[in-house]
Amino acid sequence: MTTSAEQEGKRRGRRPAGADTKNALIEAAREVFTEQGYEGATVRAIAKRAGVDPAMVNHWFGGKEGLFAQSVLQLPVDPAVIANEIASGDINTLGDRVVRRFLTVWDSTGGGQFAALVRSVAGHEMAVHGLRDIFLKQIFMRVAAKTGADNAMFRATLVASQLIGMGMVRYVAKFEPLASNDIDTMAAAVGPTVQRYFTGEIASPS
Amino acid sequence: MTTSAEQEGKRRGRRPAGADTKNALIEAAREVFTEQGYEGATVRAIAKRAGVDPAMVNHWFGGKEGLFAQSVLQLPVDPAVIANEIASGDINTLGDRVVRRFLTVWDSTGGGQFAALVRSVAGHEMAVHGLRDIFLKQIFMRVAAKTGADNAMFRATLVASQLIGMGMVRYVAKFEPLASNDIDTMAAAVGPTVQRYFTGEIASPS
Repeated sequence: MTTSAEQEGKRRGRRPAGADTKNALIEAAREVFTEQGYEGATVRAIAKRAGVDPAMVNHWFGGKEGLFAQSVLQLPVDPAVIANEIASGDINTLGDRVVRRFLTVWDSTGGGQFAALVRSVAGHEMAVHGLRDIFLKQIFMRVAAKTGADNAMFRATLVASQLIGMGMVRYVAKFEPLASNDIDTMAAAVGPTVQRYFTGEIASPS
Repeated sequence: MTTSAEQEGKRRGRRPAGADTKNALIEAAREVFTEQGYEGATVRAIAKRAGVDPAMVNHWFGGKEGLFAQSVLQLPVDPAVIANEIASGDINTLGDRVVRRFLTVWDSTGGGQFAALVRSVAGHEMAVHGLRDIFLKQIFMRVAAKTGADNAMFRATLVASQLIGMGMVRYVAKFEPLASNDIDTMAAAVGPTVQRYFTGEIASPS
C-alpha cells in the first residue's frame, strides 16, 4: 500500500516514507538529541539530517516526544497509545490498569528496558527532560486531565514516583518478594496507591 | 575521655579505638567489600586489614551492615537509629514518620547522597545486597515486625518501592512540583501510602 505520505516523499524527491525513512529518522534523532540536548533538538533539524520531510516525524512518531521515546529511550510502545489505553475505561480502576500496563511492558523485556531507562536518566540531563515530557505530559497529565482532579501535575509526579520505585525494586535492586510477585498481586498492592494519587484527596503544597 | 574499647585496644598493642580506628575500618571496609563483595566480606577480614580488633566493628558500626552503610554507601545516619526512631511512637502515624525521616536525611545533602546511592545500586551487585540488608532487614523488617502484620517482607519491599521512587523523582529526575514541595506536603501525600503498606490490607501473593 502506498500512503499519501509516501507519495509526498516521492514528489519531493526524498526517501520513501517506509521503514527506511523511519530508521533514518531514528538514527538522525539519536545524533541530533545527543549533540543538541532534548530541548535544543528540533524536528526540523532531525528531519534535515535524515534527508526526509519534517512531516514524516509526526507521521511516524506523533512528534518530538515520540521520536525521542523510540530513538534515545528505545521505548517499545508509543506513549500516546499507553495514555489512551489508560485513560479509557472505568475511572475507579485507573490505578489497577496503570500498574498492570507498566509491569506488562517492563516485564516483557525482563526488566532490561527499565534498567536501561534508569541508567540513561541517572547519566543524562537530556533523558530527564525527554522522560518528563513523555511520562508526565504525554501520559499522566492526559489521564489526570480526564479525571478532572486538581493539582494535576503534583498527582502526575506522585504516580511517577510509585511506578519508578516499583521498577527500581523489581528490576534493578530485585528485592524479593516484590521482584517475583505476579502482576495480579502487584496490582492489588500498588493499584490503590496509584488510584489515590490520581483521584483521591491530595493536599496542595502549603 | 578514654573508653573501655580504647583501653582494650591499647592492651592488645593495636591502634587506639578513636577516630583513627574508625577511619581505618572504613578504609579497610571499602577495600575488602570491593574485593570480596558484600556477602563474601567478613568482619574478621576487614578488622585484620585495618589492624584492629574485630570487636571494634560492633563497637563503632553495630556490625557488618552498619560498616557497609558508612563505608561503601556513605550513609550519614546509622540504620539502627532510624529503625528505632521510626518504630517508636504511634503506629497510626508510621507512614508520616517514615516519609519525613527519609526526606529530612536526603534533603540535607541536596539529594546528592540519594543520587550516589542509586548510582551505586545500578552499578554494583554488592551495593544491592548491602542495601537489602540495611533497608529491608535492619529498618523495614524491624518496623513491620513491631506492627505484627502478615507478609512482612512484601510490605517492606512495597515501602522501599515508594521511598526509592520518591527519591528518584525528587533528586534524580527532579520532576516538579514534587522536587520542590516541602516535607509537610510530601508527608501528607505519600505518608498514607507507606502507612497502608505497613498496616493496611495487603493481599498475599496468589
